[in-house]
Amino acid sequence: MASCEEVSHVGFHEDGLAALAWVERYLESVRERPVLARVKPGGLRAALPARAPEQAEPFADLLRDLEELVLPAVTHWQHPRFFAYFATTGSEPGILAELLTAALNNVGILWRTSPALQELEEVTTAWLADLLGLPQGWHGQLEQGASIATLAALAAAREARPGHRVVACSEHAHSSVDKACRLLGLEVRKTPADGRFRLRPDALDLDGCCAVVATVGTTSSTSVDPVPAVADACAEKGVWLHVDAAYAGSAMVCPEFRWAFDGVERADSLVVNPHKWLSTPQGCSALWTRRPDELRAAFSLVPEYLRAPDAVVSHSEYGPELGRTFRALKLWAVLRCCGRAGLQARIRESVRQAALFEQWVRDDPGWELCAPRPFSVVCFRRNGSDAANEALLGRVNATGKIFISHTRLAGRYVLRLAAGNARTTEADVRQAWDVLREAAPRV
Amino acid sequence: MASCEEVSHVGFHEDGLAALAWVERYLESVRERPVLARVKPGGLRAALPARAPEQAEPFADLLRDLEELVLPAVTHWQHPRFFAYFATTGSEPGILAELLTAALNNVGILWRTSPALQELEEVTTAWLADLLGLPQGWHGQLEQGASIATLAALAAAREARPGHRVVACSEHAHSSVDKACRLLGLEVRKTPADGRFRLRPDALDLDGCCAVVATVGTTSSTSVDPVPAVADACAEKGVWLHVDAAYAGSAMVCPEFRWAFDGVERADSLVVNPHKWLSTPQGCSALWTRRPDELRAAFSLVPEYLRAPDAVVSHSEYGPELGRTFRALKLWAVLRCCGRAGLQARIRESVRQAALFEQWVRDDPGWELCAPRPFSVVCFRRNGSDAANEALLGRVNATGKIFISHTRLAGRYVLRLAAGNARTTEADVRQAWDVLREAAPRV
Repeated sequence: MASCEEVSHVGFHEDGLAALAWVERYLESVRERPVLARVKPGGLRAALPARAPEQAEPFADLLRDLEELVLPAVTHWQHPRFFAYFATTGSEPGILAELLTAALNNVGILWRTSPALQELEEVTTAWLADLLGLPQGWHGQLEQGASIATLAALAAAREARPGHRVVACSEHAHSSVDKACRLLGLEVRKTPADGRFRLRPDALDLDGCCAVVATVGTTSSTSVDPVPAVADACAEKGVWLHVDAAYAGSAMVCPEFRWAFDGVERADSLVVNPHKWLSTPQGCSALWTRRPDELRAAFSLVPEYLRAPDAVVSHSEYGPELGRTFRALKLWAVLRCCGRAGLQARIRESVRQAALFEQWVRDDPGWELCAPRPFSVVCFRRNGSDAANEALLGRVNATGKIFISHTRLAGRYVLRLAAGNARTTEADVRQAWDVLREAAPRV
Repeated sequence: MASCEEVSHVGFHEDGLAALAWVERYLESVRERPVLARVKPGGLRAALPARAPEQAEPFADLLRDLEELVLPAVTHWQHPRFFAYFATTGSEPGILAELLTAALNNVGILWRTSPALQELEEVTTAWLADLLGLPQGWHGQLEQGASIATLAALAAAREARPGHRVVACSEHAHSSVDKACRLLGLEVRKTPADGRFRLRPDALDLDGCCAVVATVGTTSSTSVDPVPAVADACAEKGVWLHVDAAYAGSAMVCPEFRWAFDGVERADSLVVNPHKWLSTPQGCSALWTRRPDELRAAFSLVPEYLRAPDAVVSHSEYGPELGRTFRALKLWAVLRCCGRAGLQARIRESVRQAALFEQWVRDDPGWELCAPRPFSVVCFRRNGSDAANEALLGRVNATGKIFISHTRLAGRYVLRLAAGNARTTEADVRQAWDVLREAAPRV
């Protein structure tokens, strides 16, 4: 290989074919593997040498160890019965785009360090905004994840309203809001939610606030905060409205789910993660703002008086990174190779599967639904104690057949089943239900 | 493809072979292309449709447009005559590892969401620490880039010394220090440098400081701050010492360059970017600290009193991200498939090339060296005015044969040639010198 030509004579062609064959086998066989890794902490660490090798090793050795040592320690996010957190998919066009991205190895710093990276990021975020029905003309950029995107948005909000050091959000807002506020030196004001886990606008206190974070599709229950009412309150007080739709935002690609996003068009900033429910490999979080000047003011190190009015824009002036990777390439691949129709079909199938599961739970008197299900996540529990449900979760995940996670709602331990992986079939969801019922204690 | 199976019947196997063949051709032919993109701003944007397609398109169409539309707008970081900023290489094992990473699509949140991701990150950062001769037992983690790594380190420093809101650094410190401090609400105190562009310890004012950032290998001139003296001052006052060796740190793999890193073993935190000079594709910045508890205190949302003493560690508690990608896989591939010997050979060859170029400049009375050259970057200029040098830079970059960048040192416009790409040969460096001399005005 070129990078180590002094010490290795294995060709890229053969190694590439082997890597590709490994990926094909992996994707074809992932459903046969236990979803959740069954290793003990420290096991992989102990199985690997204490030091890097002195001399170059063949790539084939790496593939062998990947299969024999690493894979048993992998929790399979690509598995069709991965129902934990939010189910995701690294789709095939996205996977191959990552190969292309690595080969180009572009770094976006200034426009000229990769005009393609800068402009394809502008194009793909505009395409995605259009697919999701967002207002035209918003400034879009791709960050590594929603934590960084929310950090950037709240930095802009802090800049836009100096002296106001509070960020209000629902008690169900994502922990990334807490993390961003800690970095930014802002105080988080948790606002109570109603019985359906939605932020209560009547309880919203905007005193001292620079921003409110409203969530469409909370992590716990996928509840939908009342964005129109929150937007009204923000508009009245001049407070920045950041909408976190990291998971659910992808559903806007389907007109029939847009009811849940009413008011989002009034947001100052919005985050949607294509790497969650839009078939894009990890590391692709879309951030839009209708106030790009505030974002730039928060991050640009070029003083205003030095800026040429017609200067080329660089995304590095709008976020925490100086150099960025070519994230747009995978999003471009996904949007083109799936098309609007393919993306819609994927979302609809996930929601259909979740609705089926919800119905099975509803129809069985031994179980209980614990939250409304607007999208593809069902919150439920077995009749009985928290401890019994926690033990049940442990048993079903130990089967290796499914992986589900839990949350707490209204003080109770609740199980969560998240549909969303592209390989999941109705039979997989049925199997999850069977596994749960088999493992459930008789009541 | 599975993710869009409703609408596309093109197989992953054929698409994968086509993508791989494209990558092979790209890497083989990259040296024939103009290094710096020759497009006008907005050109790619205008060449692409206004909307994503309604129906899925074949992956082959994407590859065609990548070649015809995107590639002309790419600045080729993989080009052997890319001598701008810091020259990097996405090596072949690293490129293929990115394919594997995307296929696994793992997300590190808690240990169990991917034990392999968590533990391979521990293992590879320990391997790299060993290769670089760092003290044993430091906590290591991989961030997306040095901007995020420095943000994390300074957040820990702020946490460790509440009430101290100043970060001192050299006037030549990287702009990521300014950006991180702005996010963190800290003040940056720029300290004057000496005639060799090194922070002057006698000018260091630690009053109110929570941290000092010392740089080994500044971006402008690759100057080396006097870390031992800075470490003495920090130790005396209890101030956090962050060492930014994002570029030059990779040179520690060679014992003969370790003189430049004297005192680094006393750092509280250290950042080195394998994606700069260590053949790893973009998105791999190593952050070590000997004070992991401070890093955790800055980022963990789990209160101390809820932590089990023997709990499994998760990297999400030590940095700005909640979910992280499997960055360790590409670093593992590079360290194994290059080996210590391969990594050393690469560093030595870059330094040898830079030393050659430096000698050519020294021997030609029409040119001037503008800074010491400890590593692989030469700072130089043509006799004459700043404007003449700026025009010269424009002319040589317009040839498409080389791409170099500039900086300002002691108030003067200075050209920079950075060796470091793995494909660069002595003949490429010679060609750069020829292009420069041909384009230079007669004196």
